Amino acid sequence: MTDLTIRRATADDLPAIVAMLADDPLGATRESPDDPAPYRAAYERIAADPHQHLVVAERSGRVVGTLQLTLVPGLSRRGATRAVIEAVRIHADERGAGLGTDLIEWAVATSRRLGADLVQLTSDATRTDAHRFYERLGFTASHLGFKLAL
Amino acid sequence: MTDLTIRRATADDLPAIVAMLADDPLGATRESPDDPAPYRAAYERIAADPHQHLVVAERSGRVVGTLQLTLVPGLSRRGATRAVIEAVRIHADERGAGLGTDLIEWAVATSRRLGADLVQLTSDATRTDAHRFYERLGFTASHLGFKLAL
Repeated sequence: MTDLTIRRATADDLPAIVAMLADDPLGATRESPDDPAPYRAAYERIAADPHQHLVVAERSGRVVGTLQLTLVPGLSRRGATRAVIEAVRIHADERGAGLGTDLIEWAVATSRRLGADLVQLTSDATRTDAHRFYERLGFTASHLGFKLAL
Repeated sequence: MTDLTIRRATADDLPAIVAMLADDPLGATRESPDDPAPYRAAYERIAADPHQHLVVAERSGRVVGTLQLTLVPGLSRRGATRAVIEAVRIHADERGAGLGTDLIEWAVATSRRLGADLVQLTSDATRTDAHRFYERLGFTASHLGFKLAL
């Protein structure tokens, strides 16, 4: 498909991003799209941190995808900088049409351009379609991801 | 055991940290402790980023453990800030003696103090002892961790 732009998200994109976060089997129980305040506060934290790259994919003036890329410097692996992908979402109208591939390929190319040595992400164990998708794009499921809610 | 301090790492701690990174079944093939240059450059990147917390555990004047904590603001989960733990290492002399628990408990308490809503980490699938350790500390292995070397 044509006419795709991947660009830095602005505060005006928040309603579209939050709608995509909520339109998801896991997100449906975690998000509150009718209460924008916590998302606005989080957006300000993201915008203030130069190591965060929150982007949207826009097609024909409409936001149809999003992800967040974080650059994390570190000592291990000979001082490797990691690029961490979080919060990948594709609008329901675009699923299965290749936009996920476009977004992840953008993230990998941007990570390389920014000097990262490694790209990493975690995916909920229940998202088996996503696991096959990341493996097709060259990722290896070498780790377990642990979480603790505070 | 007594006399334990967990404090921010300085450039003077780099040799001890890199030695611990290399003294590990996976690190042995990934690290180059005889070549300090990439670690010094990475330390400068970490020190310049206020969202990085690289710490060492010191006992009786000797560095015996390390980890890195990164605060990542985000939109998902109602604007949750994530604290990400990386590069946990315990000196061989201290393994099995509770220092890992002390370090992770410090990281969880610090994450809470800094306003994080979630603590997360990934652990190589081969580190089965580490998986039991994190589960004992309340973490859930809910995710798969994918990596792509650039």
